[in-house]
Amino acid sequence: MTDAEHIVDRLSRQHIETQSWGYVSTGTRFKVYDTPGTARDVREKIDDAALVHRLTGVAPTVALHIPWDRVDDYAELARYAQDQGVRIGSISPNLFQDDAYRLGSLTNEDATVRKQAVAHVRECAAILREVGSDRLSMWVADGTNYPGQGSFRRRRRHLEDGLREAYEALPEQAEMILEYKFFEPAFYHTDIADWGQSLTLCEALGERARVLVDIGHHALGVNIEHIVATLLDRGRLGGFDLNSKKYGDDDLFVGAINPQETFLIALELVSAEDDADEAVAGAARSILYKIDQCAMIEDKIPAMLRSVTAMQTAFAKALLVDRDELDRRRAEGDVVGANEVVNDAFETDVRPLLARVRDRLGVPADPLGAYRASGEQERRNAERVGTPAGW
Amino acid sequence: MTDAEHIVDRLSRQHIETQSWGYVSTGTRFKVYDTPGTARDVREKIDDAALVHRLTGVAPTVALHIPWDRVDDYAELARYAQDQGVRIGSISPNLFQDDAYRLGSLTNEDATVRKQAVAHVRECAAILREVGSDRLSMWVADGTNYPGQGSFRRRRRHLEDGLREAYEALPEQAEMILEYKFFEPAFYHTDIADWGQSLTLCEALGERARVLVDIGHHALGVNIEHIVATLLDRGRLGGFDLNSKKYGDDDLFVGAINPQETFLIALELVSAEDDADEAVAGAARSILYKIDQCAMIEDKIPAMLRSVTAMQTAFAKALLVDRDELDRRRAEGDVVGANEVVNDAFETDVRPLLARVRDRLGVPADPLGAYRASGEQERRNAERVGTPAGW
Amino acid sequence: MTDAEHIVDRLSRQHIETQSWGYVSTGTRFKVYDTPGTARDVREKIDDAALVHRLTGVAPTVALHIPWDRVDDYAELARYAQDQGVRIGSISPNLFQDDAYRLGSLTNEDATVRKQAVAHVRECAAILREVGSDRLSMWVADGTNYPGQGSFRRRRRHLEDGLREAYEALPEQAEMILEYKFFEPAFYHTDIADWGQSLTLCEALGERARVLVDIGHHALGVNIEHIVATLLDRGRLGGFDLNSKKYGDDDLFVGAINPQETFLIALELVSAEDDADEAVAGAARSILYKIDQCAMIEDKIPAMLRSVTAMQTAFAKALLVDRDELDRRRAEGDVVGANEVVNDAFETDVRPLLARVRDRLGVPADPLGAYRASGEQERRNAERVGTPAGW
Amino acid sequence: MTDAEHIVDRLSRQHIETQSWGYVSTGTRFKVYDTPGTARDVREKIDDAALVHRLTGVAPTVALHIPWDRVDDYAELARYAQDQGVRIGSISPNLFQDDAYRLGSLTNEDATVRKQAVAHVRECAAILREVGSDRLSMWVADGTNYPGQGSFRRRRRHLEDGLREAYEALPEQAEMILEYKFFEPAFYHTDIADWGQSLTLCEALGERARVLVDIGHHALGVNIEHIVATLLDRGRLGGFDLNSKKYGDDDLFVGAINPQETFLIALELVSAEDDADEAVAGAARSILYKIDQCAMIEDKIPAMLRSVTAMQTAFAKALLVDRDELDRRRAEGDVVGANEVVNDAFETDVRPLLARVRDRLGVPADPLGAYRASGEQERRNAERVGTPAGW
Repeated sequence: MTDAEHIVDRLSRQHIETQSWGYVSTGTRFKVYDTPGTARDVREKIDDAALVHRLTGVAPTVALHIPWDRVDDYAELARYAQDQGVRIGSISPNLFQDDAYRLGSLTNEDATVRKQAVAHVRECAAILREVGSDRLSMWVADGTNYPGQGSFRRRRRHLEDGLREAYEALPEQAEMILEYKFFEPAFYHTDIADWGQSLTLCEALGERARVLVDIGHHALGVNIEHIVATLLDRGRLGGFDLNSKKYGDDDLFVGAINPQETFLIALELVSAEDDADEAVAGAARSILYKIDQCAMIEDKIPAMLRSVTAMQTAFAKALLVDRDELDRRRAEGDVVGANEVVNDAFETDVRPLLARVRDRLGVPADPLGAYRASGEQERRNAERVGTPAGW
Repeated sequence: MTDAEHIVDRLSRQHIETQSWGYVSTGTRFKVYDTPGTARDVREKIDDAALVHRLTGVAPTVALHIPWDRVDDYAELARYAQDQGVRIGSISPNLFQDDAYRLGSLTNEDATVRKQAVAHVRECAAILREVGSDRLSMWVADGTNYPGQGSFRRRRRHLEDGLREAYEALPEQAEMILEYKFFEPAFYHTDIADWGQSLTLCEALGERARVLVDIGHHALGVNIEHIVATLLDRGRLGGFDLNSKKYGDDDLFVGAINPQETFLIALELVSAEDDADEAVAGAARSILYKIDQCAMIEDKIPAMLRSVTAMQTAFAKALLVDRDELDRRRAEGDVVGANEVVNDAFETDVRPLLARVRDRLGVPADPLGAYRASGEQERRNAERVGTPAGW
Repeated sequence: MTDAEHIVDRLSRQHIETQSWGYVSTGTRFKVYDTPGTARDVREKIDDAALVHRLTGVAPTVALHIPWDRVDDYAELARYAQDQGVRIGSISPNLFQDDAYRLGSLTNEDATVRKQAVAHVRECAAILREVGSDRLSMWVADGTNYPGQGSFRRRRRHLEDGLREAYEALPEQAEMILEYKFFEPAFYHTDIADWGQSLTLCEALGERARVLVDIGHHALGVNIEHIVATLLDRGRLGGFDLNSKKYGDDDLFVGAINPQETFLIALELVSAEDDADEAVAGAARSILYKIDQCAMIEDKIPAMLRSVTAMQTAFAKALLVDRDELDRRRAEGDVVGANEVVNDAFETDVRPLLARVRDRLGVPADPLGAYRASGEQERRNAERVGTPAGW
Repeated sequence: MTDAEHIVDRLSRQHIETQSWGYVSTGTRFKVYDTPGTARDVREKIDDAALVHRLTGVAPTVALHIPWDRVDDYAELARYAQDQGVRIGSISPNLFQDDAYRLGSLTNEDATVRKQAVAHVRECAAILREVGSDRLSMWVADGTNYPGQGSFRRRRRHLEDGLREAYEALPEQAEMILEYKFFEPAFYHTDIADWGQSLTLCEALGERARVLVDIGHHALGVNIEHIVATLLDRGRLGGFDLNSKKYGDDDLFVGAINPQETFLIALELVSAEDDADEAVAGAARSILYKIDQCAMIEDKIPAMLRSVTAMQTAFAKALLVDRDELDRRRAEGDVVGANEVVNDAFETDVRPLLARVRDRLGVPADPLGAYRASGEQERRNAERVGTPAGW
């Protein structure tokens, strides 16, 4: 296999999970704008995910969020998905929308609320079994808005206790991936504010707890690829929530802002997948790549296609980096030269390469163009009357 | 009059406007939590504002937001307010919640939408007349989410045109105060993103357009008191939206985060009010001080009382700064010494001084304590059944 | 002329000024590392600039900084430059390194210091005449480190007065371009902290004062291309200090961090150059593009070549944007589609196009490769013994 | 003992270490300004530290930095210090100023450089023994300036290896406290960029490695008190570098910017010192409080006195917080009320309380005033002719 064939092969096996709540109406605290043709229920969300997979060939799973996607019969839902050509992927509990959680869920001073939160996570762990998924994607949005409002240390202990109870309810093969976030919805402190908080919790829980990195959940300026590399080296990077941002947790589609950053993250991932140390490589190869964006003003499916394509672009460029040459330049202390090697790959137009990948996968060379020509949007606009689903 | 009496006198004449939408249920894009006893309509909001004024003596006006506070008969609403002991203050149009504004209001590519936006602002200008107010408080939330989405320069021209039409509709004595904001709800660019955008627009409009500074609308690190001083010196600071923040536009109550900043802003204001140049001093004395906070998880009225008190605290400390001594230290190039003068005032406990002010005003020495003892919250909890008002 | 020829033609006429202090030893407050072969005096700096021009064909001028490049006979220095194949470009006064400026230069409370600062700027204005340059590039680094240290408003007036005196000393055809900076070396406030400060000062000075945008001088998150567009629309953008950054004023070579941002800025510039309004277009075409970077750990000339190339890349991609199609998508409110048009240009590999430009200019297709092969670095390493020049 | 006596007693036992390099000329990359009377060598630095201790009674130790404070005979230096009334405290190696460290010290690709770095740290470990100190204060400034320049993961392993060698050289009772920093002098990535990097390294090293928190080394917005609490709970907070900042690592004196933050940090520390869990309490009581500021434009000793006083102020206010009442409000979910308890302490003027502490310690009630009246500055100005010490 030539290098190019090897890269095509590898890109053909990329797996990007789209998320059910990326196909619905979302917005800001100021306004949620509806767009025509938006999915109204979980089946329509799955239909959209399946369409994205048909158009790209690399999005075979769809993440669900409970209770937004709650149904009576999850096994049947899993069959529905399969009939459309996709599988159900990770399951996300919701610890931020019940009235009880006003002052926290797993960290609440009130034991009753903490119990309710644990019970909900365990419900989601049970759903994993029913749909045949192995990834519980946890975002604990807890935090405080004012100095003095809560005891940081007591909350941390509650958090660890609650997560442990949830962790123990996981199916045997399943894993908990634990998110962190700089701020929002809490505005003074967030209990799991950064990768250090998340990592130390995962280490307390056990082997099947790994950190989830949401690209938009960092303070401005933070070097995300460095965090990614650090977690990779410890085998503790479990997943991504993929999007892009300029300010806070903007949740724009991937690559919209600073695509170089996505590429530099991909470079670390590719390097870890190829590591001689099987512990590092194996952990890297089992990472969940989940889109997590909000199409607030734009059409949902085109936005999702852009994210999937941007992830393909980032990995394609990362695979093009001449890593031997890079190591030579590093060994020589050639700062400009090492950067040049990386930059050369970034400057390369990988669209022809992606066209070959898509040809291999039997999908359109231009997924977004194909979507536009397909009449799928118009069909949705006509059929999906009534209120779109939301959060 | 001694110095202390002079300060008491001056603090007795402070005027802080509370905002009707500070008495309702607000939250984040993730969840709006209701708290018991929250106002359900504009009259109950006015009742709450009136209560805050009765407890503090320095909050005689209440800002309205249209359409949240839209009524058929504004003259009657003004009378209702007066009966409760307050007046209607500034009027804020809403250019961000109509479905038509998905891609902008005054900056929209579609002339129909721009016209709709102008018409709405003119409606608000008309309300000014009906309620006898003289301040139109404008927040144009327009911006884009993605590179390329809009033409910055064309949008700017539409914006200037639209504002001019609105400006020309103002009652003769009325003024437009024009807000700026770093980001949110737009996540790539905001048309009026900083004081420079706002100031240049105001200068294009005319004498009766001044900049409104919302404390939470700056990039992290920005020196707000410096901006305040710059605008004061040009006679172009027209108003404040008062709150505090740690991250983005957190809208916490005033003084919750970094009260030193509020104090340093107050110091600039006091200095301008006392300026020998009457143009500067007069402009400073006519500034609108409007609270603009969101009590997302806490009770609304206590949060509002905290903001009012924090503004009193900031100005009391600012008035205590020995400005002659400060100027001496500055003239001597005594860096530590100049800072010390300012810090000495900040370290002073002004609660006794504020107690004297409240005694003079005939209000309780401890407004929040008095509120808690008054049974007003319990009465509201009992009476206000049903859905609270929101945005 | 085909479109491609037109683009090649336009790129052949690009003019990027390199700066003499980019060829010397610079570093952080912690350490300045020397690299072998670094220029030891102004003539060697000019030699390096001339070499960069020979290798790229688009860097015909070199900026000087006084007193770093002070000589007895500037006319002779200009001839020296010309003999090497370059001209002397903008002149930068230094208002931050004299012991007298500890508490400010043009803003100092001490009139003697202010006078000294004005005299120095006037000296630089005189140098403009002697070297035949028409651009005075002003950075006033003044600010304070502690609350209370200075009077914002008094400092502003001193600043305006001092700048006016300097402005009046400009040769008739010359222009002042006025920089702003968020922070450093001042850590509490900077007198010219943002484009608003700079613009209002320029407007107070007159037609021949325009704003200089240093890419690294903004708070994190600030949308620089929006500022650029705003200044362009007013005809008040006069120049750039080009570099890239991730945190503060990192002064890395252009395009190292987030090259998309450089591209989006270039897009605004290209659009203004083509504006139907000749006032806008003419002003855009007369903008000074000056590199302003610090090669702190890497070889100076390679770093400079990377910056020049990155600017060519950004403009090449900007010229490839299909602006008619972009406007169509905008008019249709097609958010994803408009972004796609811009992104398509960004994803294009413009290295073949730049090779054509270089062919047209008669310079090597790969300037950095040619430099490495030329032996110029080795020759410098051998010849330039002794202490390199610094700031 | 009454509460007030208890607080006085506790504040009398505060121990704040001043740092030798706080008494010398420091500045920015643009300029180092000298101020009159500044120390010229290590003995004069110790003299200044001793004076600060005589004036405050709470600064009995002085930190040294090698090689800035390198001497032939450390035992003799220790005796000199003791004769002046202070002891030598922590020792800081320097891994950022040798020419060899241009591309890193402990993380360098070149094993020779790594060895040199380890050897230097071991030299400092040996000095600990000679001066009778037990704290090695490590700042590894290593990082990269450009994407691709270094391998994050390989550097991390080198770092861990080097630190382990250094750790093993520590005297038996001594401890390594390990700093982290967001950016500067590296501008793309810093190897120990945040508390997560530092903590995981400390855990890899052993029990006698703890994290050092420098207040100025965080991204903007980061909640430092939350990090402090997290480290306290794990017994892994070992020390502070105390200063204040508005932008980057501004190194202003403590409390100059946002004194509320210093207070909220102190609140966590006081709470941990009083923890029922002896592991937590013991670790908290053994934390090193080291000033780390740069008086760039102001007189050094006054600036140091301000920092010491600010730390006393922060702890005094923290001790005044009614923690029982705070816990009651938290248990009730009273958000405003809990914040009020904390704010009440912050609003208290603790200068009378600190006067009592100083009376108990037998030092002047107003250390800075006493300094000014003492003639010590004038004596220094007269005696210390010649070049001040620097970095």
